[in-house]
This record gives sequence, C-alpha cells and structure tokens, in this order.
Amino acid sequence: MAGGQRIKREGSVRYIVGVDLGGSNIVVGTVREDGGEIIGRSLRPTPANEGPDSVVATINEMISGSIAETRDRKGGTVELAGVGIGSPGPVDIKSGTVLLSPNLGWRNFPLLDRIADATDLPTTLDNDANCAVLGEVWLGAARNANIVIGVTVGTGIGGAVVIDGKPFRGASDVAGEFGHMTIDSTGRRCKCGNYGCLEAYASGPAIASRAIESIRAGERSAVADYVDGDLSLITAETVYRAAGDGDILAVEVVRDTARFLGAGLANLLNAFNPDLVLVCGGVTKAGDRLFVPLRNEIKKRAFSPAVEACEIVPGELPELAGVYGAVASFRIQRGESL
Amino acid sequence: MAGGQRIKREGSVRYIVGVDLGGSNIVVGTVREDGGEIIGRSLRPTPANEGPDSVVATINEMISGSIAETRDRKGGTVELAGVGIGSPGPVDIKSGTVLLSPNLGWRNFPLLDRIADATDLPTTLDNDANCAVLGEVWLGAARNANIVIGVTVGTGIGGAVVIDGKPFRGASDVAGEFGHMTIDSTGRRCKCGNYGCLEAYASGPAIASRAIESIRAGERSAVADYVDGDLSLITAETVYRAAGDGDILAVEVVRDTARFLGAGLANLLNAFNPDLVLVCGGVTKAGDRLFVPLRNEIKKRAFSPAVEACEIVPGELPELAGVYGAVASFRIQRGESL
Repeated sequence: MAGGQRIKREGSVRYIVGVDLGGSNIVVGTVREDGGEIIGRSLRPTPANEGPDSVVATINEMISGSIAETRDRKGGTVELAGVGIGSPGPVDIKSGTVLLSPNLGWRNFPLLDRIADATDLPTTLDNDANCAVLGEVWLGAARNANIVIGVTVGTGIGGAVVIDGKPFRGASDVAGEFGHMTIDSTGRRCKCGNYGCLEAYASGPAIASRAIESIRAGERSAVADYVDGDLSLITAETVYRAAGDGDILAVEVVRDTARFLGAGLANLLNAFNPDLVLVCGGVTKAGDRLFVPLRNEIKKRAFSPAVEACEIVPGELPELAGVYGAVASFRIQRGESL
Repeated sequence: MAGGQRIKREGSVRYIVGVDLGGSNIVVGTVREDGGEIIGRSLRPTPANEGPDSVVATINEMISGSIAETRDRKGGTVELAGVGIGSPGPVDIKSGTVLLSPNLGWRNFPLLDRIADATDLPTTLDNDANCAVLGEVWLGAARNANIVIGVTVGTGIGGAVVIDGKPFRGASDVAGEFGHMTIDSTGRRCKCGNYGCLEAYASGPAIASRAIESIRAGERSAVADYVDGDLSLITAETVYRAAGDGDILAVEVVRDTARFLGAGLANLLNAFNPDLVLVCGGVTKAGDRLFVPLRNEIKKRAFSPAVEACEIVPGELPELAGVYGAVASFRIQRGESL
C-alpha cells in the first residue's frame, strides 16, 4: 500500500541466475522464474586446485557472462531477481557458508558473500544434492510427487528429502546424508573411517574398483578393452558403457551395485514412506540394467505398503537439474512456492 | 455464529479416553485435554488367542469402566470428547483399519468401527509406535524437540517420526518402520525373511537369544541363576537385570545391542538430522549400560553436524506414553495442536 512499494511491471517476468558448483565442473545459466526458459548457459572446469579465490572469480565471470547474454536477448531492463548457488558439502544456509567440502578443499568458506559482493544481487546458497533434487521436483522427474527422496550417485553419494515442494533440512541443515548409511556394519571400510557405508559399495569409485579387482583377479571382460588394457583408467562410466554393451562382468558389477543401493533405498522407503525415489547421477546411464535389479531388491527388502506407494525413477535433467534447483532454492528461500 | 453452534461451557474441560492396545496388554485411561490428569486407569492382558471379538469386548469394557469412573469423579455432565486408540501393526488411519498385526493375528480388521459402534463417541486410530512417541512429545522426554525420531524396542522394533508436534506419516501411513532397516545386508536372518534387519539384532528376543547362545556355548554368567538354570526362561528383561548387577556376559550383550542399535540410529541421524532421538521400551531399563555405548557408537558413525544437533534420550513415560499418545493423536486428527 505504501507509496515506496515496488510495483512489478505488468507482464514483466523475473530471471534468476542458477549456479551449480561441482567438484569437477561449474554450470551456470539464467532461468525464467517459471522455469520455461534458460539463457546464457555455460560450463567450465572447477579450478579447485588453484584455491577458492580462483573458483569464486570463475563463478563471477560466468554469472556476468550469463547476465550479459540475458540482457542482450531480453533487453537491458530485464528484471534480474538474484542468484541461487548450489555447492557441495554441508552448507550453513543462513550464513551462506560452505562448512566442509573435501573435493574443493574448503572449510567454513563464506561463498555466498563472495558472490553477492561481486554481483550486488540477492543471493542464496544451498547444498548441491538439495538443488539437484529440487530441480527435478520443479521441472523434472519428481514434478508430481509429494514426498521425494533423492539420491545422487557420483564420486560420493548424496541425498535430499523434499516434502511438499520444500527441502526437509533437519535440525542443522544436514538431513539427507544417505551416503554414510550403514548397510553392512562389519563390512567394507569407507573413506569416512567407518565400516559398511553405502558409499563404500555403490559410489562411482566403488563401482570402478569392483570391476578392476575382478579383472586383476583374472576375470575376462571387455571392460579392459575400453581403456586399451590400462586398468587404472577404468571409471564407473566405463563399467556402465560395457554393461550397456552386455559385458558379463560389467553387468554383474551393476547388478551388485543395484543390490547394495537397493538395501540402502529400502531403508529409506521404510523410514520416510516416500511416493517417489529419484536416483540421479552417472549411475543412471546403466538404465534398466541398474533399475530392474534395483527395484527387485527394494521390493524384497522394504515393507510392502511402502513399496506399493513408491516409484523408483531416474532423474530426467542430468545436466541442468543443479542449475534449475539452485534457482528453485532461491525462490523457496525467498518465501515463494514452486 | 449460527444459533445451532455448540457453545463450550465456560470453564469446562474435555476428557478423552486413550486406549493402548499391545500384543501382551491393553492399557486404558481417561485423560484431561491438557494432559494434566488421568482417571480410570486399567490394565488387562490382551486376549489375543481368543480372537478379535474378545479383544474388542475387553477394550469396550475397559473404556466403559474408565468413563464411569470419570463421571463418578467429575460429575455426570463431564464432557467426554472421544476415544483415541493406538494399535500394533500398520494401520489405515482414514478407514480406521488395522492392516496387519502378526502378534494379534489380525489382517484388515476394522477396529475403529468396532469400538465407535459400542461407545458412540468420536474415535480415532493410530499406530502404537506413533502413539508412544506422541505421548513423549506431548508430556514426556520429547516435550521441547521439533524433529523427533522415536524407536520402540520390544518384541519387535517400531518407530515414529514427529515433526513440529505432528506425526510424519509418509505416503501411505507407514513411515518410521525402523525395525527392518538393513544394517548388515549379508547378516543375520530376520523373521521377516530378509537378512540383517536391525530387529534381528537389537529386539528383545534377539537380546535374549544372544545371551542364551553364549551360555550354551559355555560362557559363565549369572544370567542363568536368575532363571534357576532354565535357559528357556531367559528374556531381554533378565539380561537387563543381570547387566544392572554387573554380570560380565549380560553387560557384553547390552553393549553389543548398543552397537547394533547405534548403527541403526546413526543412519536415522544422517537421514533426518533430528534434534531428539527417543529410545522407548524395556531396553531402556539397562540405563547407562546401554546409553553410554549407544551414544558412542552413534558419535562414531553419524555425520558430526548431525550428532552435535541431537540428544539421545530414554522415554520418560514407559507405562503411559501409549495412552497419552492415543489421546494426543485423537486431538491432532481432529485438527488441534498439542
């Protein structure tokens, strides 16, 4: 009512910049507030080894570039509402601090301030797994679900819980840390120091290791041919490709992965009784060779009313879920509904 | 505003009957709406072997008795708002049906209707673990917590999630089924058919079995003396008593239980990031001999920001949490806040 209140121009739409900071790559894009358009997309390797200043400078350059392209396409007066950032590691959302990111080598790093100082735009920070899952909730595979458990399988295993379109963050913003769920309390040592964590069995590196160990132990497999015999070059991606081509060892490794991941996801079905479990990350490239045994394992292990209520699906937006989700998180943190 | 609207008498308070139906006992009491008073308490063995009609008749007699005593004490015009029931097994809250209760031998049993028909009062049904935890949230150890994970350790292991004073029920009312969480995917067979469920390690019967197995294998222990050498009489309670008296084997069994339970609870800390974990049931009788190693195991296994945010405490209302919680659930299902 007050005279000073800002009036939204009739017909104007806002644009929000999304930043998906990963251990390997940074992806940036400017997204129309309804998610219907993305402008000024770019991807660059994360210069993690050059230290945080270099990472911040790269992000800020990418944001400027994306904003410039958006102004270019939409006119100089286009309304830029702000910047949403997704970052690895537990983050403190209120202060905008990355608490700990082993892949970036950061501890208590004030990422939000460092970006906001350069752009002079309202800025929010969220965890990368929250963002990836929020992106799928907003515009992807989880659009119609109310209780969503998302698991991101990559170098590590992350996760997020989204209830009625909002991240469930827990008492100190770290809910959804599914990678270090014990599925075998006397089992394989995890790099976190414990034994039997899901991540020690079903992460990308764990998948690669199992293939390498088997080949070293004398199993014949086409996996070795994909890397010209240099086993040290085998990654989870190699295994997924070989599995897609029907290689017996690779298919077996994927099936084992499905069993471990299935035990972990069954625990989440029993605990949260979600209507959708979203599996994101490179592992989804294995397609049905992963999802068929995965669904079977979950069915075998979880409580049947929880199984009947729940779909298990791959993410639909592997490349852009993080950017869209950073924008979704910005909107949610500003009190909007998706 | 309409003339027909019922006017609450000034100064009048409502009373609600709570029913805690268990596999072994039924407990009933009439509770003042603020939880400040309980009248007409009774406890009877559950006549599960005589079939559901007999169980229903017993509950209805106990309700009538409790109401009669309440009228006696508070005057015939006391306002009785209704009946809240807690029952084992997954329940369908909307239809008031007990979907499955192996201990009672029930499947799809319309318990709510059978009670409401007799009392002619508004009636609600909820799961017993939800009720036990809601009772502690309303009036016991979880009074001041926002995100509460409750685990009930008895013949089976049940659980509940209460967020901001309301049960988090999931997509089909079965959230919180922690007993069949896999903590050792290749481990001990559970009676559910799977391998490595928490319940196969940390439930009452699992605790008794471990003590019995060790004594049969030749370990010396005072546990056998508590049952005059008849090992078949050893229960979890015997083990807790002997542990309290310092028996080495019993202390070891309790410590092992703490390790298994700790692995399970650490998973829940990582997933939900609660501010309180409530451990209910007979197992809490082992006191510090359980809770000290339990907290250590959780600290070792869970993500440290989740550990720092969370207290691990025993329930405060072992005998009445179920009755109070059935009343709390009644109030919540009628749209009230606790």
